[in-house]
Amino acid sequence: MAASTPPPLRAFLPLALLLAAAIVSPAPTAACPRCRSPRAPPSLPRLIRPLHMQAVAAADGGGGNSTDAKPFAAHYFAQELDHFTFTPNASMLFSQKYLLNDTFWRRPSKGGAGAGPLFVYTGNEGDIEWFATNTGFMFDIAPKFGALLVFIELDETTFLCLLLPWMINEQHRFYGESQPFGNDSYDSPQTLGYLTSTQALADFAILIRSLKKNLSAEAAPVVVFGGSYGGMLASWFRLKYPHVAMGAVASSAPILQFDYITPWSSFYDAVSQDFKSESLNCFSVIKATWDVLDERGSNDKGLLELSKLFRACKTVKYGYSIRNWLWTAFTYTAMVDYPTPANFLENLPAYPVKEMCKIIDGFPEDADILEKAFAAASLYYNYTGDQTCNQIEDEDDPHGLGGWQWQACTEMIMPMTVSNESMFPPSTFSYDERSDECFQSWGVRPRPHWITTEYGGYKIDKVLKRFGSNIIFSNGMRDPWSRGGVLKNISSSIIALVTEKGAHHLDFRSATKGDPDWVIEQRRQEVEIIQGWIDQYHQDLVETSP
Amino acid sequence: MAASTPPPLRAFLPLALLLAAAIVSPAPTAACPRCRSPRAPPSLPRLIRPLHMQAVAAADGGGGNSTDAKPFAAHYFAQELDHFTFTPNASMLFSQKYLLNDTFWRRPSKGGAGAGPLFVYTGNEGDIEWFATNTGFMFDIAPKFGALLVFIELDETTFLCLLLPWMINEQHRFYGESQPFGNDSYDSPQTLGYLTSTQALADFAILIRSLKKNLSAEAAPVVVFGGSYGGMLASWFRLKYPHVAMGAVASSAPILQFDYITPWSSFYDAVSQDFKSESLNCFSVIKATWDVLDERGSNDKGLLELSKLFRACKTVKYGYSIRNWLWTAFTYTAMVDYPTPANFLENLPAYPVKEMCKIIDGFPEDADILEKAFAAASLYYNYTGDQTCNQIEDEDDPHGLGGWQWQACTEMIMPMTVSNESMFPPSTFSYDERSDECFQSWGVRPRPHWITTEYGGYKIDKVLKRFGSNIIFSNGMRDPWSRGGVLKNISSSIIALVTEKGAHHLDFRSATKGDPDWVIEQRRQEVEIIQGWIDQYHQDLVETSP
Repeated sequence: MAASTPPPLRAFLPLALLLAAAIVSPAPTAACPRCRSPRAPPSLPRLIRPLHMQAVAAADGGGGNSTDAKPFAAHYFAQELDHFTFTPNASMLFSQKYLLNDTFWRRPSKGGAGAGPLFVYTGNEGDIEWFATNTGFMFDIAPKFGALLVFIELDETTFLCLLLPWMINEQHRFYGESQPFGNDSYDSPQTLGYLTSTQALADFAILIRSLKKNLSAEAAPVVVFGGSYGGMLASWFRLKYPHVAMGAVASSAPILQFDYITPWSSFYDAVSQDFKSESLNCFSVIKATWDVLDERGSNDKGLLELSKLFRACKTVKYGYSIRNWLWTAFTYTAMVDYPTPANFLENLPAYPVKEMCKIIDGFPEDADILEKAFAAASLYYNYTGDQTCNQIEDEDDPHGLGGWQWQACTEMIMPMTVSNESMFPPSTFSYDERSDECFQSWGVRPRPHWITTEYGGYKIDKVLKRFGSNIIFSNGMRDPWSRGGVLKNISSSIIALVTEKGAHHLDFRSATKGDPDWVIEQRRQEVEIIQGWIDQYHQDLVETSP
Repeated sequence: MAASTPPPLRAFLPLALLLAAAIVSPAPTAACPRCRSPRAPPSLPRLIRPLHMQAVAAADGGGGNSTDAKPFAAHYFAQELDHFTFTPNASMLFSQKYLLNDTFWRRPSKGGAGAGPLFVYTGNEGDIEWFATNTGFMFDIAPKFGALLVFIELDETTFLCLLLPWMINEQHRFYGESQPFGNDSYDSPQTLGYLTSTQALADFAILIRSLKKNLSAEAAPVVVFGGSYGGMLASWFRLKYPHVAMGAVASSAPILQFDYITPWSSFYDAVSQDFKSESLNCFSVIKATWDVLDERGSNDKGLLELSKLFRACKTVKYGYSIRNWLWTAFTYTAMVDYPTPANFLENLPAYPVKEMCKIIDGFPEDADILEKAFAAASLYYNYTGDQTCNQIEDEDDPHGLGGWQWQACTEMIMPMTVSNESMFPPSTFSYDERSDECFQSWGVRPRPHWITTEYGGYKIDKVLKRFGSNIIFSNGMRDPWSRGGVLKNISSSIIALVTEKGAHHLDFRSATKGDPDWVIEQRRQEVEIIQGWIDQYHQDLVETSP
């Protein structure tokens, strides 16, 4: 079977494969700001058991397997299914999970005054342990602020629970008799249709308001934090719900990666630039890989040989699987090109792009180009050396990323192409094709211009120059998502903090001993700005009260 | 039958009667910022015929029946049913009507530059002719600005069309076979559930964006205007969609009439104050009316006599019908206590509260108190003298206000009570009772705190002091809705313009020769402020462009 022949469409076809099949080459999960590698543990939440989770330090590569675990208390909030209609389904309730850590919180006095702020993390497209693991920054700064830490499980994760009928708390306000989410409908727009960013933001608003009331902390300031997709949500939340959150820290939030705002090729140009900046040879080797791969994987015999070369656990059926496997390694390594060892997407050394290129450059020039590529990708997939084979075609857990795949077929249409100048094989993007693919896969058609209609983005500097306040957009330029971020100050209080050598929400990771000065400085600026917001908030309270 | 005995609940019971039945006394439509009197023409839109409507001058009492009619072109926009989910119903299309007047518009040059602004009226809870009739201000100022006038038919009116199955443009994206809105479901949450303020705002955003694109006027500034409920929508639209509208003029918008922000008795206290300020005797007569009315209407014989006294077209069955009829007259007259003759809710002379009190005060002291009240109310209902009898119990057109009644049972929960100090019989408000009534009437339960969660309102001065810009909140203190409005400047560009003698969005009415100086000055300030926004908008465009 030729490498570029699409596989037959199956029910529940992961969007990853779908895209790969449809546009020939792009990395499957590239449309997802922070998708887990297919080989990561399934992201379906385990909502039933009470959780005292291991927190950031435990997972921080720099800190090693620290025993400094921080306890969370898991709570559940009865959330309505649809905040924007009053149709009979709208008032169905589901349990939205959130985690609290009040170790550092300055509780309000009996009169309700004096409470420390609420630092609320606005979810992500992964399970809750995972995103809490990568927000050590919030733990690090909580003592200084006396802050209550709140992690709200995002729509996607929450809504995936909706797919499990036994999770539904059946409390129809109108009609007690119908159960719309039967066993058969768990993958249809009937249920997933409620998974949207706007519903998620309303969830946050309702939950935060209720939480503050229950804590008698209604006057306490709320700052929302989010990284990647969570960062988009954080910044949008501040813009849409200024009465709920008085500030937002949006790290690596590509809110401009939509429509025609950011050049469609910029993401992969940026990945390529990361490699090129380390070594021209490295870039050239990777660029030359794809044709060789296509040629040698063009028949079954070749695929068998490639399966051996790439140490596949099972013989690879489709040549593009290997291409995607490599593509993912290079792209995600660029995203997490952290200056210290870390374990976000995979366990990796400091500056992993540099390390990958060292591996490639270390080969004799005339060595097999696919061996070079394999060795480089192995840094990403197997830095610890404990993998005996590679799950190159992994069809397990097709819904592990189902939520994001759904979102990428509805709201989160981030057009991406690959230019001739990049190190990846050129590819194009077509709204019509995406729409047809999504309809075939999910029975839904995207609203490709909805995000910019609902949240804006065009001329954001002009729109927000005299509107809104108290948002930090932080980005690291090694992260290809930075190209869709806000990279310049918009006003005196809508601030861009950019580091040349930073990667995907590096600032949100726990401080470690190996941190370079520039990330220490970025975090210091964030703390200073947040402190300024909070000081001003309290000052305004006093000044304008009667 | 005793006056306070509720009538049997019927299918499609208008909320008016429902409320009257439930809480004994409040005016039926008092929860509605600008409801039409039951005797006004039915408000269901006539969407089929192309419209070249009579515009403001024709209906302006001051100007008389001017022949200065201004033509509109009616257009229809294919709008999706539900912007916030991707459920199968969400992508159903319906035709949203909007009207354009480009008489004064400065069209863009070929390159798209230089276009005059779009002045967009953000609908109301009435038919489109009615609200266009009361926004002469926009016509008056359009020439100065070279503005395109756009009137978008609001959700309610639009969505009422959804109740008419033949209006539905069946364009399911997913499933061609089902027609969810059959003949039987026109009054159920299945269809009305999509009638919400958030959906309406998204409608505006999508329509405006599309319109600007089609007109090659993407760089043109957009200012939204709205009065009463439309003013709430205008201000919320600026806050939620700053990238679509760069300014909002919200006239008589009671955005603080929710939850516990504004004292619940303030509305009727304000009505009472209007009458008291004219004459203490007038106030006292009206205050004494209700007990007399209850007593004399406590049996069928008494109701027959009252029917004659009040010149009812049909014998009145329920005593509270007369109470509501009087209540409506006093309340609405306070709302439209304009300084010039006008025909908004009814045809009325200048300063109608003063005229009503003159009528009451003109009676001998010992005259029948109900005759006094009747004579006063007749000013409201029959100033022109062409009514031969009064439709006191009018059960026609029970759905003429259906949309607003629905909204008053879902989002628009504006608690109102009547204090002992007012001229109305005291009454209370209970969230639980409202909820039960709404469930009984519509099969839906309100979300009483949703508006303040979605749009804010608490401590609005603090929340918006450093967030948002370019909003005018105008109010006239004779209008009881002013008590739920923004009456103080919030920042240098979120401005309150208050007139002591103004009434319900008086500033939006056409200029007439009899206008007092203070309303001329209010309008002048509005023009000046809008001009400042537009100048700044263009200046910002130049300054920040590369």
